[in-house]
Parts: sequence; structure tokens; C-alpha cells
Amino acid sequence: MSSLEALKERLAPVVDLQRVARVLGWDLQTKMPPAGGGHRAEQLGTLQLLAHERFVDAETGRLLDAAASEVEALDPDSDDAALVRVVRRDYEKAVRVPSELRAEMARASAEARPVWVRAKEQSDFSAFLPALERNVELRFKYVDCFDGVDEPYDILLDDFEPETSTAEVRAIFAELKERLVPLIAELRGDDTDNSFLTGEFPPDRQERLAKGVVELFGMRPGSWRLDPTVHPFASGAGVNDVRITTNYDPQTMKSLFSTMHEYGHGLYNHQLPPDLGRLPTGAPCSLGIHESQSRLWENLVGRSVPFWRFFYPRVQETFPEQLAAVDVDRFVAAINKVQPSLIRIKADEVTYGMHVILRFELEQDIVNGRVALRDLPDAWNAKMSEYLGIDVPDDAHGVLQDTHWAGGMIGYFPTYLLGTVMSVQIWEKAVEDIPELEDAIGRGEFAPLREWLGDHVHRLGRKFSPQETLRRATGSTIDAKPYLAYLESKYRAGVAA
Amino acid sequence: MSSLEALKERLAPVVDLQRVARVLGWDLQTKMPPAGGGHRAEQLGTLQLLAHERFVDAETGRLLDAAASEVEALDPDSDDAALVRVVRRDYEKAVRVPSELRAEMARASAEARPVWVRAKEQSDFSAFLPALERNVELRFKYVDCFDGVDEPYDILLDDFEPETSTAEVRAIFAELKERLVPLIAELRGDDTDNSFLTGEFPPDRQERLAKGVVELFGMRPGSWRLDPTVHPFASGAGVNDVRITTNYDPQTMKSLFSTMHEYGHGLYNHQLPPDLGRLPTGAPCSLGIHESQSRLWENLVGRSVPFWRFFYPRVQETFPEQLAAVDVDRFVAAINKVQPSLIRIKADEVTYGMHVILRFELEQDIVNGRVALRDLPDAWNAKMSEYLGIDVPDDAHGVLQDTHWAGGMIGYFPTYLLGTVMSVQIWEKAVEDIPELEDAIGRGEFAPLREWLGDHVHRLGRKFSPQETLRRATGSTIDAKPYLAYLESKYRAGVAA
Repeated sequence: MSSLEALKERLAPVVDLQRVARVLGWDLQTKMPPAGGGHRAEQLGTLQLLAHERFVDAETGRLLDAAASEVEALDPDSDDAALVRVVRRDYEKAVRVPSELRAEMARASAEARPVWVRAKEQSDFSAFLPALERNVELRFKYVDCFDGVDEPYDILLDDFEPETSTAEVRAIFAELKERLVPLIAELRGDDTDNSFLTGEFPPDRQERLAKGVVELFGMRPGSWRLDPTVHPFASGAGVNDVRITTNYDPQTMKSLFSTMHEYGHGLYNHQLPPDLGRLPTGAPCSLGIHESQSRLWENLVGRSVPFWRFFYPRVQETFPEQLAAVDVDRFVAAINKVQPSLIRIKADEVTYGMHVILRFELEQDIVNGRVALRDLPDAWNAKMSEYLGIDVPDDAHGVLQDTHWAGGMIGYFPTYLLGTVMSVQIWEKAVEDIPELEDAIGRGEFAPLREWLGDHVHRLGRKFSPQETLRRATGSTIDAKPYLAYLESKYRAGVAA
Repeated sequence: MSSLEALKERLAPVVDLQRVARVLGWDLQTKMPPAGGGHRAEQLGTLQLLAHERFVDAETGRLLDAAASEVEALDPDSDDAALVRVVRRDYEKAVRVPSELRAEMARASAEARPVWVRAKEQSDFSAFLPALERNVELRFKYVDCFDGVDEPYDILLDDFEPETSTAEVRAIFAELKERLVPLIAELRGDDTDNSFLTGEFPPDRQERLAKGVVELFGMRPGSWRLDPTVHPFASGAGVNDVRITTNYDPQTMKSLFSTMHEYGHGLYNHQLPPDLGRLPTGAPCSLGIHESQSRLWENLVGRSVPFWRFFYPRVQETFPEQLAAVDVDRFVAAINKVQPSLIRIKADEVTYGMHVILRFELEQDIVNGRVALRDLPDAWNAKMSEYLGIDVPDDAHGVLQDTHWAGGMIGYFPTYLLGTVMSVQIWEKAVEDIPELEDAIGRGEFAPLREWLGDHVHRLGRKFSPQETLRRATGSTIDAKPYLAYLESKYRAGVAA
């Protein structure tokens, strides 16, 4: 057996353990009896510990060195050359972190989650503070494992968006902020009637519709499931076991949009290269690229005129009490209404970016010691007022709204906006390559888009960096301009079908 | 840190991996998208591989030796002395089996399951034969890892019922067969009317009732769940994460009995010693002891007169169309009707044993090369005719009915009957210790029984062998006589409330 083959055999169980952890994470949020949290934290810690131990073992390094010479003559784009390159990078990072610290991070993260849930229910940041402190402290220990970086935040960001520096993100976000703040101010007076989007939307009918959307957009039958959760997410155990979740709020139909969003994540997982299935290169490229897929389906498809020309009659039939008297123009205008609001995941396309920029700024302040954790609520509320002109009534609707920090996931938030920006670049390239794309969507045909995304984005897996992946898909690395132009053109003109 | 503590730290992740595999097994049968079977087989194989690798590592042996001298002076009944004893035995077995064979067995087992499902649907044994052959061949390889045993079947049996020999089981089963065959013949003419047990039993009402039974029998709120599956089972991730399943056949209310059965398993898992939680001694003792718990709740409680005097009104209210005109005497007589039938899990208490004895005999024939796998259907059908006077119409109702052999689980079946026999011994001791027990059950009070079982059986975990556990709980090792006396007295007299 070649060293390359031996390396693959060594890595497959590591990938398996990561996927098992994903299924357990899904189970934790959808099915686990609530008292089982203690067991689950231990079990997730163990999976992390064993995956890390196996990966950082000296044998991996030895096989990597030997495999590197075996692939030297290969095309750098080949699967095997990419594997050695990607694993080398992962390995150099991983060997710096003690397995016990990895396991402790996984445990602390699993243990903080129920603490955050209770604190949010009671809107009591102080109840959450100790769990946050423990997780942040572990992140400082994690950062200390590395040296030779420009700034500590780079280390944290790299776990979610590899080979992307804080400085690069700051530059993109500065460009966005400069034009988003005035655009939001300009659109603040949007008086579109969206009152019919609030009312009685029975969850069973929402669920039927949500499943219908996934079937319509398309995944191979028998390879996915959709479940209700408090916070929607996508997970799964492999290309043929895709799990997405949504939330059925009986007063709104926002489940439809979160389903389209999670579908985008799910489709990416579904169309990853199956022949790289149990290798690190068979995974999604980065959270930013992942988010480009979810935002593309949620916004570029799911808030577009062609889609709603096709799909609106079905939604109208599902909720006749709410929508019988509302025509498609009024409906599309309503779902695109711009209105600064408290909650990121409910934000419209225009204000969304500022929610992320706020968190990115606070995270840098945390990591650089410019804000004490106990002062986070005040810092949060001040920025909400400054960027969106909104008063935060309580922590549940402010600093406690998202789960990420409970899991110690600092460096994660920026990927939401990076992905949103990239979604427009990818969408515009797809429209360019498939001139009839919007017509097809208007007929309810999604296979052309699915296949284009599969060929140009998904099948690259994790072979290349996020920016190289984007460049191969679109011809360009990340660029804020198409996104800003899209927002300005769509929203200045007013949206109607 | 003492070697004992180091040993515990080494073992905890092994226990975690086993429990993770249990949750994944539950997921496979309840929630997994059907196309995900390939991923799952790989993942279960990996969990088995890594657990086995870690356990059989020379470091475990070294720590065991050192820990053995540390516990030398302790009471042999103490947790720590028991741990060293139990782990020593497990280790001596495990080191004989290559990790790759373990993983291959786990994969072959996961891969055979869908093959069996399809073969059973089509009642086509030949479609299942290759998967069975592969699994049996792996069992032969497994047996070959050991030497110095009286017969090969001992090796397989020991994985399910440790420290119990095939010869001992043969002796007990011979005693049972000698009195069961004439008892079945004698009761064959039972003409009790049970027609009202077939009809319309809406699954949603069955589910409400099944959850009500679990709540009534009792487990801590938030620490269990009940789901529908094709084949009922109990699983879970720890004492606070207990998962039981049942099957809602719309034509019968047998879900009630399978729920009581799985509740017995679940309660055992729920009341295992929490302070031994992540140690091998914190697990159930054996499948036989496990089955004694399920059969106790299903039969000694769930088919008893006192229980139905209390519970029948609720069932009658739930299914008034079927039961309004049926009084409790007729109902109890009907659920205890003796009637030879094709399917083990639907068998009454009297004929049940012969279903197990049939499988035990066939398994010995397989292991000893006295029957070719392709001839199993004929051998099965001949025994069904001889022992129960039943003609098997097709393989789905014969040799393909149970999933165990698809998973390569040879040596498992006898534990069903061993457990059934022990359930009567345990029940009679509980009745002796709690004179008011049957009165309490007649009032719907189950805490006394739950607590007695917790104190006398569950809290022992896996510290002692099954027979030693039974001896400590009841004062006697396994004995067929109480069980036979119970059957003869209950069924010769005729059952009525």
C-alpha cells in the first residue's frame, strides 16, 4: 500500500467521527431527552478527543511526508495533490493544540448551550456570563497555541473561513458599512404594507409547505429529512443523509424562508464529491462558501419575482385566510420590506449586513481585550442604536439572541456576511452561464441551477481555499460591489412582481 | 494519579463510544433517511474500531496490572475491585480479536440489515442468504480467535450472557422443553374469545396510551422518549437519555405490551448506577438479566389481574368501539389466550419458550456445521411443525421474521428465554419482600416495584456475573421450576380477573 493510501485509511475514521458528532449535534437539538445533556457533552468531548488524537499522531505526519513525495508529479488540481495540501495545512494547525484542550472546548461548548437557553428565556445575561467566560477563556488558550500571526482573531476566523485574514474581512466590511448605513437611512421610511404576513399560520400547513419547497427545489428522495427546532440549521452524516431543520412560528410564515436557507446548506452537503466522501477534501470548503449557498436559495431565488410568480398560488391556497385578497405584487413587496429590526435571522436583505458587522466588531473587541464580557450588553445596545437606530428592550432580543457565543464560536459570524456577498457573485455567474435560468425558475424548474452549483461549487469540496473556490466558480475573488449594486438596484427601484 | 484512576480515564471514552453507537443505532432505525445506510455502516464500523483499538492497547493491560495490586486489599464487592475484575475479563477476551475484524463485523452487520428488510418484504430467503453467509463467516473467524473452550457456541453466547455455558443453557432448556411441549398440547384447545383484540385501533390513540403507560410505570420526566419503529427496542445514551420504541399496528393494541416490555428495558438503563456511569461496570449485566426486566413488566405486571383491575377502564375509554361491551374478566382472559403462532414476538407466555428453543437449536446446528445456511428455512419449518404444530406459509413468517441473524447476532436468542425464566424468580422475590406489592399495583402505584428492582438488580450494574447478580437479588441462581410452576398454575386454572 502506498503512503497516500495509508494516509487515506488513517483519515477516514477522523472524518467519520466528525460526521458522527454532527449527527449527535442534530440529535441534541431535535430529539434528545432534555436531561441527556450531561451524557451528550461527555460524548461529544470524547469524539473530539479521539478524532484529534488520531489526527495529530506522529504517524499522520510521517505518512504526510511520504505521501507528499508520491504526489509531487501530479497535477496540483488533482484530488490526491489537493488532499496532501489540505491535510498538511490542517495537520500543522492541529498539532499545536493539545487533545485535552480540544476535548475541553467541545465539552464547555455542549455544557454552555442549555445555560444559554435558560438565560435567554429569562433574558438574563448575568446567568450566561460564567459559561461565556469559560468558553472565551478556552479560546484564549487556543489562540495561545499559535504564533506568527498578525492578530489573534485571525486564528479564530481561520477555523471557519480558512486562509482569510481579519484585515481582509475588515476591508470588505468597511466598504459595505460605508454604503449600507446611508442605504438603510434612505430606505427607512419604507411603508410597504406587510401586515398580512402576521396572523394565523397553522404549523401543520407550514410544515407541508416547507416539505413541498424542499421537494420542489430537489434532493434525491430518501436522502434528507426536515425537522422542527428552535433554531434552524443544517447537518447530516454524509451526502445521502442530509438533515435540515426549521422553526414553525404559528404567527408568521418565516419557516418558508428558513427552509429555503437551510435547503441551500443541505444541497451543498448533498452534492459534495461522493468519491472524496471519507476524506477531509470531501467536506464543505468553508462556512462562508456554505453561507453563499444558503443565502443564494433564500434570497436570490426565494425573494425573487420569477420564483414567486410560479410559487405564490400554492402559498395562497395554503393560507387563504391570510392571502386570498393579496396579489403577488403586494406579497413580493411585503417579503422584501426593509425595516431595521432586533433579530439578525429575521432581518431583511438590506439591514442584515449591519447585524453581522456589529458582531464582528464586538468579537474583535473581546479578543483584543477592549471590552469586558460583562459589558457586552451595553456595547451591543449602543451599536444597535448607532447602526440601525433601534433600542434593544432586553438581552433576549439583544446580546443573547444567537447561540454561537454559547458554543465558544468566535470568528463564525463574519462568514454570514462574506457568504451573503459571495452569493451574489455566484448567482450572477450562474445567470450569465444559463441565460434561461430565471425563466426556468419561473416555471418551477430548479435542476439547471442545482446542477450548475454542483458542477461549479459543490464538487470542489474542500480541495481549494474559499477564495480560490470562488475564483474557479466565478472568475473573481470576493468583491463587495456586485452585492451592493444588487441591493441598491433592487431596493431603490422598489420591489414588485 | 493512581493507576486505577488512569485506568478509569482510559476506559471512559470507550464507554462513550459504545453509547454513541447505541444512539446511532437508534437513529438508524427511527430517524435516518433511508439512503444514509452506507454512511452509517462506515461510521458504526469506525466507532467499533476505535473503541476496540483503545481498549486492547497495551497501555490498558499495563494499567490493569498496576490497578490490580492497588485494589488487592479492597472488599471484592467494592466498585473498584469489581471494575478491575470485569475489565480484566473483557480485556482478555478483546485482545484476542483484531480491531479490523471487529470493525468488519460492525460494518457487515449494518450492511446486512437493509438486505434483510428487503428480503423479508419479499419473503425471499435466497436474497438474504449472501448477507447471512458473510456475517456467519465473520462469526467463525471470531470464534477462531479463541481456544480452550468446550464448544464454539460458548464464545458467541458469552458476548450476550457472560460466564454462562452452552451446556448450562441446554440443561435449562431441556427441562423447559420437557414440560412446555405437553403443556402446549394440553392447552391447545383454548377457545377463549379474543376477537375484540383485532379491529380498529387508531395509532394516535395507541400512542397516547403507550406514553401514558410509561408515565404511569414511571421514569424521571425529561429523561426518556418513545418513538415508533418497525421492531420495538430500547436504547439510549445513558441513565438520563433512555429511548424506547414501539410499533403501532392499526389492527391490534399489541403496542401496549411491547411498550411495557421496552419500558422494563428502559427502566433498567435508567436505574443503572450513575456513579459508575462511564465505566464498564456501569452497564447492564447481561442480555438475560435485561430481558428479565422487560418480561417482568410485560408479563408479571402487564398481563396480571391486579394491573388490569386498575388500568382497564382507561383502555376501555380509549377504544370504546372495540371494548365498551367487554368486561375486565373477558379482557384479561383474552390477552392471556394460549395459541401457537408463527411470530415469536407475538407469542403468548406459554408458547414463547419454544420459539426461542427452536432458534437455540438451529444456532448450535449452524455453528457445529450440522445445517447449511441455505437449508435453514426447511429446518425452521420442520421444527415449527414439531414443537408448535404450525405450518409456516412463507419465510417472512418463518426464518426471516427476526433481525438478529442479519446483524450476525448468533448466541443472542437464548437470553430471551433465560431472562423470561429469571423474571419469575425476581418477581417472586419482590412479592416476598413487599407483601403489599400486588395491592399497590392494583392502585396504580409502581414506585415500590421500581425501587425494589433498582436496589436489588439495577444498581449492581455489571459488577457481577449474571448468575451472581441473580443470586444476590433472589438468593438463587437460575432455576426453571418457578417459571414452569407459574405457567402451569396460571394457565391450567384459566386466567380471569
